[in-house]
Amino acid sequence: MSLIVHKYGGTSMASTERIQNVAKRVAKWQRAGHQMVVVPSAMSGETNRLLGLAKEITDNPDPRELDQIAATGEQVSVGLLSLALHKQGVKAKSYTGWQVPVRTDSAFTKARIESIDDARVRQDLDNGYVVIVTGFQGIDPSGSITTLGRGGSDTSAVAVAAALGAEECLIYTDVDGVYTTDPRIVAEAKRLERVTFEEMLEMASLGSKVLQIRSVEFAGKYKLKTRVLSSLTDPDMNLAQEAQSGTLITYEEDEIMEQAVISGIAFNRDEAKITVAGVPDKPGIAYKILGPVAAANIDVDMIIQNASHDGMTDFSFTVHRNELKKALEVIQGKVQPEIQAREISSAADICKVSVVGIGMRSHVGIASQMFETLSKEGINIQMISTSEIKISVVIDDKYMELAVRALHKAFGLEA
Amino acid sequence: MSLIVHKYGGTSMASTERIQNVAKRVAKWQRAGHQMVVVPSAMSGETNRLLGLAKEITDNPDPRELDQIAATGEQVSVGLLSLALHKQGVKAKSYTGWQVPVRTDSAFTKARIESIDDARVRQDLDNGYVVIVTGFQGIDPSGSITTLGRGGSDTSAVAVAAALGAEECLIYTDVDGVYTTDPRIVAEAKRLERVTFEEMLEMASLGSKVLQIRSVEFAGKYKLKTRVLSSLTDPDMNLAQEAQSGTLITYEEDEIMEQAVISGIAFNRDEAKITVAGVPDKPGIAYKILGPVAAANIDVDMIIQNASHDGMTDFSFTVHRNELKKALEVIQGKVQPEIQAREISSAADICKVSVVGIGMRSHVGIASQMFETLSKEGINIQMISTSEIKISVVIDDKYMELAVRALHKAFGLEA
Repeated sequence: MSLIVHKYGGTSMASTERIQNVAKRVAKWQRAGHQMVVVPSAMSGETNRLLGLAKEITDNPDPRELDQIAATGEQVSVGLLSLALHKQGVKAKSYTGWQVPVRTDSAFTKARIESIDDARVRQDLDNGYVVIVTGFQGIDPSGSITTLGRGGSDTSAVAVAAALGAEECLIYTDVDGVYTTDPRIVAEAKRLERVTFEEMLEMASLGSKVLQIRSVEFAGKYKLKTRVLSSLTDPDMNLAQEAQSGTLITYEEDEIMEQAVISGIAFNRDEAKITVAGVPDKPGIAYKILGPVAAANIDVDMIIQNASHDGMTDFSFTVHRNELKKALEVIQGKVQPEIQAREISSAADICKVSVVGIGMRSHVGIASQMFETLSKEGINIQMISTSEIKISVVIDDKYMELAVRALHKAFGLEA
Repeated sequence: MSLIVHKYGGTSMASTERIQNVAKRVAKWQRAGHQMVVVPSAMSGETNRLLGLAKEITDNPDPRELDQIAATGEQVSVGLLSLALHKQGVKAKSYTGWQVPVRTDSAFTKARIESIDDARVRQDLDNGYVVIVTGFQGIDPSGSITTLGRGGSDTSAVAVAAALGAEECLIYTDVDGVYTTDPRIVAEAKRLERVTFEEMLEMASLGSKVLQIRSVEFAGKYKLKTRVLSSLTDPDMNLAQEAQSGTLITYEEDEIMEQAVISGIAFNRDEAKITVAGVPDKPGIAYKILGPVAAANIDVDMIIQNASHDGMTDFSFTVHRNELKKALEVIQGKVQPEIQAREISSAADICKVSVVGIGMRSHVGIASQMFETLSKEGINIQMISTSEIKISVVIDDKYMELAVRALHKAFGLEA
């Protein structure tokens, strides 16, 4: 008998009919002898409805009150799922975040989990209950309700699973696993049976939307087996088959046999580029440029500084496209008077394409193969950034699909 | 500076626009120098929507889970009202029942308040906050959310006001006070400026729907001034005028100057009558008849036993109309074989009409005036029951409006 955590997204909880399908699935797992904890999201659309009501009142809502309001969506879900399990003849009990309690800091609307008290949950499990815990929320030291931010139910599920020492956390969603790239762009994209946390982390940070990045960090930190699988299958499907479906995210590299060099191609269109050209290559120049940007609370992703040339260098970085205007104002208003750069330019019509793979560590030549592929397609590379298990390039936005397809093929990722 | 509690019903909270009107009204009271606590209901329709979702899943829902679900309606309301107050430039903070905490027993869906901890609320008030507390709910000793049952927001408001030693509890609703009788039946019905708790209690128990009976009991127990007034007036109306509007429910008889003998006429059509005729008038007969009815969990309202006649007596009682069938089964199946009554009869086409007035205590002749009035209209009285401040009669259902109008006029209650 092992302890299993299931997480169901808003689409799986969208109607009382679907909630009853979730209950059937959970009941099947319990009857197979597992101790079950379930973390459901709010019914799809509900969180938006609640935030919409707040927005009707004010554009600048107090975050504590926003959390008070938004947390109710999951509370309704846990109660309904508990009723649906009772109907399946299964003992079940629901808990809100504060009832567990899931303790967080006080960063309303984007709180971080600090600890989870497992006493009540464990007692109920020992008494044969399926325990249902709200995702997305907790309680801060002053007793206020906090939410973890959008997508926080994934993080809740992984955190609860880690706190309970669960055997595995199964994240049921509307895709059937993690793919080598987005199947909407590359029809031949292949589902990965396994992927490492490090790769998943890179993919999430590079734009893959399968899992929220913080949930992957959590799973990695606690070395928790996490599986992404489909909630759209028949709830009565064979359990052994279901338990092997989807994509397992694992923390042990050697669990992945015959590791492919590259696991996937990620991409995103959310960024914009700023280049500060012709600045004196002196110590402190990076800080002079990025200090004021950070002070304005603008997140910077890629940062590139080219080798200097006649004592001058070019400095480029990317920010979220929504923050380009604000970042440019900082650079032109505060930075330029200080550093007297020759030229400041920017571009929003860029995209970032990345190849990710843990196998890259022990293989040379991945970068050159990537650059060669893009070159063959006539795609100019504007920026390059590498980490131990990924290479990202910034290219012209209009070539994104072309680049993703070409790289997917070049690295032999087709199904 | 005095501490005032406002309670707003679901109709007053029905939209974000109306919530902003509530906020304007509360802000006006705070600016006038009062410490303000507000207890709003769920947005109208919301509790029914939530219970409807539960009903889609099961006809026999676990009451703990039902409370987990239903309590969210008020949680959304307090958050939204807090945001609306912020927009009015007023410091405000919302609390759920468990955050206060409002401690109740564990009778899910119909819990009773046991105690209210006023420390957090009082601290916020001292710091200049308007404090918004969810109605209708609390927390039980095991940390589960409980609800007080439908209409429980009135009770919450009164209980919070009592716990804080508030100067007055204002219950804003969609009627503008307590009337001598229902204005839909008697056009000349008059709003009462004041009414005693005892009268209000009788009126509530006799069918008046203005206030939930438990809230009146609470207010009486703690001698809390409670006012019922309209939420449909202009929120910017003159405060002194608003503070005197509606009906004040007071616990001091002598506060009511020139007390009318009769305060109002109450009525209801919810009851049915059962008569057990021709039973031996021996000790224990009432218990033999009503014991099995009570054991079947059927509430009995009026109980009448006539003087005996040749050692035999007739015994009548009323039950809720919905329980007539069940009560008859008990009487015929369990009681009749024991007592061998001559005849068992029942009628559902009855109604109860009552005159209520604290002044009745010191006035003889109220009963005879009531009976004379009904007699003049040709209305036969089937049952009579009296208490210190009310006289109720059971009459044929079809005469109800006629009886109410005739009595309203006979006792000089017209506006």
